[in-house]
Order: sequence, then structure tokens, then C-alpha cells
Amino acid sequence: MEQFSFYTPTKVIFGKGVQSQVGAVIKSYGFKKILFHYGSGSIKKSGLYDQIVASLRENGIEFVELGGVQPNPKLSLSRKAAQLCIDEKVEMILAVGGGSVLDSSKSAAAGAANHCDPWEFSSGARVLEKSLPVGAVLTIAAAGSEMSDSCVITNEEGWLKRGFNSDHNRPLFAIMNPELTYTVSKYQTACGVTDIMMHTLERYFCMNGDVALTDHLAEGLLRSVIEAGKVVMDKPDDYEARATLMWASSLSHNGLTGCGRNFMMRCHQIEHELSGMYDRVAHGAGLAVIFPAWAKYIYKNEKALPRFCQFAQRVWGIEMDFEHPERTALAGIEACENFFKSLGMPVRLSELDVDDTKFDEMAEKCTFFGKRVLKDYIPLGKTEIIEIYNLAK
Amino acid sequence: MEQFSFYTPTKVIFGKGVQSQVGAVIKSYGFKKILFHYGSGSIKKSGLYDQIVASLRENGIEFVELGGVQPNPKLSLSRKAAQLCIDEKVEMILAVGGGSVLDSSKSAAAGAANHCDPWEFSSGARVLEKSLPVGAVLTIAAAGSEMSDSCVITNEEGWLKRGFNSDHNRPLFAIMNPELTYTVSKYQTACGVTDIMMHTLERYFCMNGDVALTDHLAEGLLRSVIEAGKVVMDKPDDYEARATLMWASSLSHNGLTGCGRNFMMRCHQIEHELSGMYDRVAHGAGLAVIFPAWAKYIYKNEKALPRFCQFAQRVWGIEMDFEHPERTALAGIEACENFFKSLGMPVRLSELDVDDTKFDEMAEKCTFFGKRVLKDYIPLGKTEIIEIYNLAK
Repeated sequence: MEQFSFYTPTKVIFGKGVQSQVGAVIKSYGFKKILFHYGSGSIKKSGLYDQIVASLRENGIEFVELGGVQPNPKLSLSRKAAQLCIDEKVEMILAVGGGSVLDSSKSAAAGAANHCDPWEFSSGARVLEKSLPVGAVLTIAAAGSEMSDSCVITNEEGWLKRGFNSDHNRPLFAIMNPELTYTVSKYQTACGVTDIMMHTLERYFCMNGDVALTDHLAEGLLRSVIEAGKVVMDKPDDYEARATLMWASSLSHNGLTGCGRNFMMRCHQIEHELSGMYDRVAHGAGLAVIFPAWAKYIYKNEKALPRFCQFAQRVWGIEMDFEHPERTALAGIEACENFFKSLGMPVRLSELDVDDTKFDEMAEKCTFFGKRVLKDYIPLGKTEIIEIYNLAK
Repeated sequence: MEQFSFYTPTKVIFGKGVQSQVGAVIKSYGFKKILFHYGSGSIKKSGLYDQIVASLRENGIEFVELGGVQPNPKLSLSRKAAQLCIDEKVEMILAVGGGSVLDSSKSAAAGAANHCDPWEFSSGARVLEKSLPVGAVLTIAAAGSEMSDSCVITNEEGWLKRGFNSDHNRPLFAIMNPELTYTVSKYQTACGVTDIMMHTLERYFCMNGDVALTDHLAEGLLRSVIEAGKVVMDKPDDYEARATLMWASSLSHNGLTGCGRNFMMRCHQIEHELSGMYDRVAHGAGLAVIFPAWAKYIYKNEKALPRFCQFAQRVWGIEMDFEHPERTALAGIEACENFFKSLGMPVRLSELDVDDTKFDEMAEKCTFFGKRVLKDYIPLGKTEIIEIYNLAK
């Protein structure tokens, strides 16, 4: 077990109907004026917008609002949100939506608190030392941004998708009602299931990843998500399954399944170049394509192999083939790939209408133009990343 | 899944040698004067005391100190600590030790911040609205107090042992180096293993406890603790096993294994009367006696039975007997009892030299002199609690 720190200060309020508490929760912190940030407007159709506004008014919370956050959230909007926070002197940002709205809010909060361009933090030019508080009413179980320290934004100039991590990115509170996710489409739900699993899988498959307690927790979380994922495909309004996915989205990315591990989100890095380049690609769908390709590239490595065998046995119930452990490992990868497929996820780039014309450029960007190598069982430079894209074709 | 809130703001710093960071951590919060609170003085023999003092001095942290915390920590000392905090105008309390030192610190912090008798909070006369910050350098993996919202103190007047819960009881930070637990005796280690398991078992066995994700996490934690418990009995300096126990102590009582469950710590309540009455009884040892007796009293209840069968199967690997599920359930309870025995724990009151002369008085106190019934599959009033004590004879 490697040294680690664990810090999850976000106050989670979870259950049926909890969104009606939003105004009272904000008031309990003493905030009087907020930015209400959201996405495409589906919260207006669903009635959630009105519920939030009613709760804010009841509690005397003044607000300005900004909608329009898109999937793979864009820098231009978070810049606009940051400026609005400064101009209107708001004290916190309320994100109502999923990971995209949260990340747009985090980026805006960083810019507003420091009176600078939010991209300075995403590009790594500046370290975040303070931010505005961000609170969430979650409507999609996927990104885990409601408890995580990460913030991922796409800069339309050059289509660079970049994440940065900071404890100052961790939301102050997260209000989570699984019922609000009943209307998430089958495809978006499947993307969410994939994203949730991937946050744990990135941590699980790392060098020195063999940490008994964290392994058991990670495997338990994965099994729960797989079970719940199957259920919601047929029964989108199954409360228990939706609740499992929603709570798992937080636990999978708040740090719990990485404790004692020195991990790196390399499939995420490789995928970011994909959904950064092709804006139509949903992050979860991109991960469903990249993970099996990455896994097939890595699993025969002698340090990786026992981890892949454990994954096959404990998560997918595959029997160990002691004579041919690589068969067990591959069977686990295929079981995972087949599960993604069963959810309706793409598992090949061709299914996303992506051919190999941009592999070189994507790999170039992923290595920061030759300035970084992704730490992995096999270090991943430009050549290796292109090989992984090729395996994903 | 029931409604829940989850709030674990404690910053955990975990790994080899991390105790040397204590001064810098305290300084990072801006504190200048603290109370350094500890136990019997074993930290002086081990050299930890000197390491802490050096780190405090290096970082310019002024401190007053108070040792002498005993197992089942006493109100008289936490009163003294509270007064010292007030007189010396300290800004936070640093607890160096295990659960007893932490709870003594929490109690003192409550009294000091509110300029009142700490017992007011333990007795339920007053609700805690603010407290002094408490930080920990942990030396025993057991109570989980380093992340928990609970504080248990024994009032020597009447030997009343009472706990109370409040988010204000949650420590600000916890510095956790598993190496510091290498010298904990076999007996105390076994008490710790039992206590850790019990914090999850209390949550696991509750009405409406059937929460898929939380179940998987709880079962994974229990399996890890059982594995690690076996290892440390033979190899007290096994870093990985000590690390598992230390991290599990926090996760087992910070709320994680109770999410979505409406639980009650009834074995703890029943045990508190035992170690409250007989000060020689270590809390963990008391639990090792009470849990099997409680479980044998409860398991045939029709709502409890499926939970006990799941426990037997998933935690102890016992095969399900579909014709006689009660046999499966009982086998699980016995496996747990035998595990406690294998650690050298007592599993009967007679092994603690406790006879039935005080059962009536203990049960009387446990029901707050007839004013409460413990919520359970079978509601536990005085008569039922005496039956459980009798099963534990």
C-alpha cells in the first residue's frame, strides 16, 4: 500500500425528493447570492428548474442564471460564467445537471475566485489555490464530479480537452435524488455506467495496484454497477438500481477506490483526445472503445497479468486457468467488452465513424507534443498510443 | 435504499513516517496553540512523543499537554482537558493515541468550545452546535473515532458509559502510519479487529439493511479485515496487514458501510453497559461476547434470516442450505464466533469473570431505566436484553 491522502469534504444528501432542500442547504452556509448554472434546458421540461427556483426563493437566495452547458463542456461558456460571477458578485455556483455542468461550474469558480482565465488552471500554467464554492443537484449518474477533485474542459481553440485536479475543485455539497435520473436516455445511461466503471478500473489497473482492502471495495463496487446496469436497461425507473448507479458514480471517483494506489488515468487521457477531436463522441462511449483496446495491449505484461486474472475471477466470476493465465485474463477483458456491448455501447472506433486519419495527431496531443509519457505497465509514448488506437479500430 | 447523508470532512494522511508531518499540517490550518492530549505514556517509551514535540517546535506550534487517558475514557479527565483548553486559550486539540484519546479529546473540545460540562452532550441534555477542532495521530486501529461522528465517555459517578453523535465530532485531520501499530499487543490488536468488524456488522444487520452497493462494500471490508487479522496475529509487523486494519478502522465507522441503511448500534449499546459496569472489560472483548449472543437471539426472525444467510455465504464462504436456511445462518454466526476465538478473544461472559448478578441493573441502564427500546428485528427492551446477556453467559 502506497502513501495516500484521502479528502472528501463534500456533504452528500441522498434520497427521494431531496432536491427540495437545495435552498435551505445553501442558506445553512450563509450564502445570499449564487449563480444557477445548467445545461440544455431539459431541467425546464422536467420541472426541476421550477422546483429549484421555488426552493431558492423560499429561502431568500438571490440568483443569476446561465444555461447552455454542452456535453464535453466548453471553455468559452465557463469563461462567460466566470465573468458573470465577478460582475454579479455571487458567492457560490449551484450546478444543476451532470458532470458537464459540474465541470463548467468548477472551471468558472476557479476563474472567478482568481479573476483570471479559467484555462490557466486547465493548461497547467497556474496552480489553483482558492476557488468559489460549488454545490450540485445531480441529474446524471456518470462522471462522479459531484465529489471529485477533477475538472475537465474543452478549449475550442485547437479542440484541446484538458483536466486538472485540485482539492479546491471538490464540491461543497451534492444533492442526489436517483429519481431525477429515470428520464436519462438508455444511451446516456449506458455511457454513465461505463464512465463509473472506468473511474474504478483506471485505479484498479495500476502498477503496485495490489492493495487488499481497496481491491475488495473496488470489486464490490464494480459488481454492484454491473448488476444495476443490467437492471436499468430494462427498467429505467428502478429506484434501487438507479440509486446504486448514482452513489457508485460518487464513490468511484472520490478517491475511495484508489487509496494506497499510485494511479494514472491513462485510458481517460487517451480517450480525451478522441472526444476532444470528435465532439460528437460521448466520453463514456469513447471509454468503452478505448478500455478493451488498452487492456489487450497491456494484459500480457508480467506485472499486469495477475491483476487481469484477479479482475476476471472476482468481477466476472471466470474460473482461473492456472496453466494459461493469459486466457483467464483475456476472458475477463472480453467479458467486460461484451458487457459494454450489451448496454448498447460501441466497442470499436468504426462504430463511432472514426477512422485512422487523425491517430497521429491525437497521439501527438496526448503526449503533449512529445513532452510526456503516460506511466503504465508499459510506458505509453506516441508509438504505443497509436498502437492502442489501431487495436480499437 | 433509505435516505442518507454522508459527510466525512476529515483529511486523512496515510503511510509510513507521516507522523513527522503533524506540525506542518497544524500550521497549514493557521493554528498557533494546541492541547497535546495522550494516554498512558507509551508514546514516550516508543519515541513518538519526541517526534511529535520536534515537529510542533519546528513549525512554531505552542502547546500544553495532558496525558493519562485510560481505556473507556473517563469524564473527569475530559473535564480537566476542557478547562485546560479554556484557561490556556488553545485553538485545537491534538489527540495522539487510539479511540480513547480521541473520544476524550472530542468530549473536551465540546466542553471547551461551549464553556460547559462536556457531560451535557453525552447525557443528551444539550445538542452540540460547535466544537474545537480535533486532529489525530493514530496509534491503534480499532475505534474508527479518527473519522467518526461519535464520542463515548464514561461518567464515573454511576459508571454510565454514553455515546453521542454529531458532525461537529468529526476530526479535522487524521495522520495514520500503520507502523505505529506494530507494538500494539496481540490482545489489543484482537480487540481492535473485533471493534472494526462490529462497526460494519452493526450497520449490516439492520432492518431494511438490504442495500446492494453498501452490502458489497461492507462484505469486502469484512473479508479484508478477517484476512489481515489472521496475518497480524503471527506477524505483528506486517505492513500491508496493519495498513488494512488501520484504514478499515476508519472506513468501518465513518459512515460508508451504513449508507442507505437506517441502523442502530444495538450490540454497542448492550456492550456499553458491560464495559461501563466492569471497567476491566475492553470494549472489543465485550463486543466479541455480545455479538454472537445477540445474533443467536435474532437470526431466526424471518426478516433477519436472509441477511444472516447472505453474511454466512459472502463473508465466510459457507454454502447455502436452501432446505434449512437457519442452519446456514447459524453456521455464519459460529464462523464469526470461532474467528473471534482464534484471535484469543473471549466469547462468553464467564471468560471475563462476569456472572449474572448485575444483568438486571445493566439491562435497566441500557433501556435508560425503561425510557427506550432498542430498535431491532425484535425490539429489545429490558427482558430481551437480559435474555441476550443470559445467552452470553
